[in-house]
Amino acid sequence: MSAAEIAQAVSSRKITALAATEAALARIAAHDKVLNAFTDVTADRARARASTVDAAIAAGQPVGPLAGVPFAVKNLFDVQGLPTRAGSKINRDLPPSPRDATLIERMEAAGAVLVGALNMGEYAYDFTGENVHDGPSRNPHDPARMTGGSSGGSGSAVGGALVPIALGSDTNGSIRVPSSFCGTFGLKPTYGRLSRARSYPFVASLDHLGPLAHSVKDLALAYDAMQGPDADDPACIVQSVEPTLPLLANDIGGLRVAIAGGYFQQNLFQEATEAVARVAKALGATRTVEIPEAARARAAAYIITTTEGAALHLDRLRKRPNDFDPAVRDRLIAGAMIPAVYVDKAQKFRRWYRAKVLELFQSVDVILAPATPCTAPRIGQASFTLDGVELPVRANIGIHTQPISFIGLPVVAVPVPLEPMPIGVQIIAAPWREDVALRVAYALEQMGVAAAPAPRGIGA
Amino acid sequence: MSAAEIAQAVSSRKITALAATEAALARIAAHDKVLNAFTDVTADRARARASTVDAAIAAGQPVGPLAGVPFAVKNLFDVQGLPTRAGSKINRDLPPSPRDATLIERMEAAGAVLVGALNMGEYAYDFTGENVHDGPSRNPHDPARMTGGSSGGSGSAVGGALVPIALGSDTNGSIRVPSSFCGTFGLKPTYGRLSRARSYPFVASLDHLGPLAHSVKDLALAYDAMQGPDADDPACIVQSVEPTLPLLANDIGGLRVAIAGGYFQQNLFQEATEAVARVAKALGATRTVEIPEAARARAAAYIITTTEGAALHLDRLRKRPNDFDPAVRDRLIAGAMIPAVYVDKAQKFRRWYRAKVLELFQSVDVILAPATPCTAPRIGQASFTLDGVELPVRANIGIHTQPISFIGLPVVAVPVPLEPMPIGVQIIAAPWREDVALRVAYALEQMGVAAAPAPRGIGA
Repeated sequence: MSAAEIAQAVSSRKITALAATEAALARIAAHDKVLNAFTDVTADRARARASTVDAAIAAGQPVGPLAGVPFAVKNLFDVQGLPTRAGSKINRDLPPSPRDATLIERMEAAGAVLVGALNMGEYAYDFTGENVHDGPSRNPHDPARMTGGSSGGSGSAVGGALVPIALGSDTNGSIRVPSSFCGTFGLKPTYGRLSRARSYPFVASLDHLGPLAHSVKDLALAYDAMQGPDADDPACIVQSVEPTLPLLANDIGGLRVAIAGGYFQQNLFQEATEAVARVAKALGATRTVEIPEAARARAAAYIITTTEGAALHLDRLRKRPNDFDPAVRDRLIAGAMIPAVYVDKAQKFRRWYRAKVLELFQSVDVILAPATPCTAPRIGQASFTLDGVELPVRANIGIHTQPISFIGLPVVAVPVPLEPMPIGVQIIAAPWREDVALRVAYALEQMGVAAAPAPRGIGA
Repeated sequence: MSAAEIAQAVSSRKITALAATEAALARIAAHDKVLNAFTDVTADRARARASTVDAAIAAGQPVGPLAGVPFAVKNLFDVQGLPTRAGSKINRDLPPSPRDATLIERMEAAGAVLVGALNMGEYAYDFTGENVHDGPSRNPHDPARMTGGSSGGSGSAVGGALVPIALGSDTNGSIRVPSSFCGTFGLKPTYGRLSRARSYPFVASLDHLGPLAHSVKDLALAYDAMQGPDADDPACIVQSVEPTLPLLANDIGGLRVAIAGGYFQQNLFQEATEAVARVAKALGATRTVEIPEAARARAAAYIITTTEGAALHLDRLRKRPNDFDPAVRDRLIAGAMIPAVYVDKAQKFRRWYRAKVLELFQSVDVILAPATPCTAPRIGQASFTLDGVELPVRANIGIHTQPISFIGLPVVAVPVPLEPMPIGVQIIAAPWREDVALRVAYALEQMGVAAAPAPRGIGA
């Protein structure tokens, strides 16, 4: 059942929130030994919360649009009573969080029920979904394959239908990549749109939080529940709240759709090219636009990522180097040595690049681009060959997502259900136009071009 | 004659603007061989401009409050027709500036007459007023002594009474230090208050422009003429323009005055201690406040300065290393190698520090602190002894100014006319309260505690 169906059934007393919650807990119990998506199952809390929802319904009190909907969060969200591990070993020594993250509070205020926290790459510095401390989360369509990172558990939990909605974070692609590999819809909102209060950061100037879901309607339901300013996150600046659910429609109206050319048509496996072509054809898109200097944008995103990330973790690198994933530690140490002058150049370039890309949106409403260069690689796979060049997998999975999040554009990643594995396409909109990206994604879903496939890698 | 007196005399036709201009040009011709304050004398332009002012007066048209007042600018301001050398050899190869800096335009719109551009430390990375390309500017009270940097020519030209007003820039102290050494009043406004459009930058996040003058009234006249937003400088954000001249008064009303303690009472020669004590006594100030972590603020200011400065000059360091002042080049190369993680820490500290210092202004209106640890050292002097420790002069002249400009607070530096050399005291106000600092400075001038002494190092 989708989130929308569960909420409808619970609100109309066809099922109880507790029953919906128990069903999710049962799915987790049945399949998470394979998927390894969850690091914490908050069963007691979930049952108590569901009972509260049921009591409100029984008392005739209003419940929200997510009444009784089970959801889970990447373990960098503060969950009251748990240390916020953020995929690390070190953070498990933190005291339990005194309060939930803002986005959890808003989901629960809309009636949803938190059932647990999800596996992720250490400190979110990851594109694979692997984790040396917790083991890799596994792809619900083929458990030998990667989920993609760093919100790998979020992709696995939604793609594996353990929960209809999960929350993740995306700094350079960490919502869009697992959505692509696990066959889910994912929304990386505009930078500054959704509050990051009480979540564990990675790169404050690039971090976004957002939902992954099994359908666009569920994505919009979650996004609408979480929208709104929050004084606890200084970057969360938007005052207006405009629900997107009512704007979903079977067609895209007069929206102008273009395909990202050049850089975004290179370094692709055939399945990624095929997925973009299918989406473009369904939308009648023939025009190509050039996102200028995308390769430099990716390089600049890397520089800002690794230096800001290193600054965040510098004390831990000094005091507990052996408690890091060695590969993450190496990346952070490298970042700690990058001169500030390069960051200055990267930031100046970012302003130029942002202005140039925003100009494109004067003549288009959405831009299509691949979410990943390939379908999910096998867990442990170290290299792949792109355009004839053998490259490390991990560093290159985000090649097509980094230049977009670098300037905070909103993106819905839509899954194209290819065989044997799904792959995502980015629907990129202008800043603050999540509604446009969601509308296009919904139309594609209605046309059957985008769909979250049923998980085939776990038992029925 | 002060600027106010000249403007009054010109407006009332007692003298012509041309005569006032010729007098300034004559003073420059007589004394600048000693002072070396000017790198460019724009005599033709000045005479043409003065004649325009006189013609307007003759025609009964309104002229501004600076009618016929000669002024000069540090040579990092764009002056139409001159390359903006910014104290460097390299920049002399730039094309002539097509347009004046905003602040020059505003001074001239108020009737003032630009007579030239002033010597400065290379690329403003200086506290001494020395320059290997142009030679040192010299102190008007003793030409064997430093003017202080980097606006050394500005201090020399005003302190030497060549012009009543000069414009300078202050990144870490470069208006306040020459004001202290040369015995002038100087205003470093709030960060973002005065437009920096069409001036050559050093550290964009710390650069301020402002006036030096022979009296507080002249300082306020210049400041009022230059106030106001400017779309050409994105940091110049203040919309309101509140003239400060009408607010000057013989007393400080109920303003609460405190003395900066701890860090600001250390590393001082006796004359600096004496100057602060005289000012405090005149104002009836007995309370001491602690500006927390000022030493760390200075360190953080250094890190941001050297890395942003290095980023600005990186291409020139690569292409024309031998055309730099070797000492400036060494500082910039060092800055080019500082890891970004340190800058990140410095910026985080800056936010904390700013909030802490702003809290002080809930219970005080101005804070007194020394402008320099000493009176002007001798040109070429390499070290001095502070609190028993021998330290390099250049790096330590700004020890008491850096922690203040680091968070953009407005400061009026007032000269205390000690013998044999004057020395400055900082009157520090809360952000956007230049009016408060100017009122206190004016009251001190009326009491005779602060005064710009007549130049004794040049002929009568």
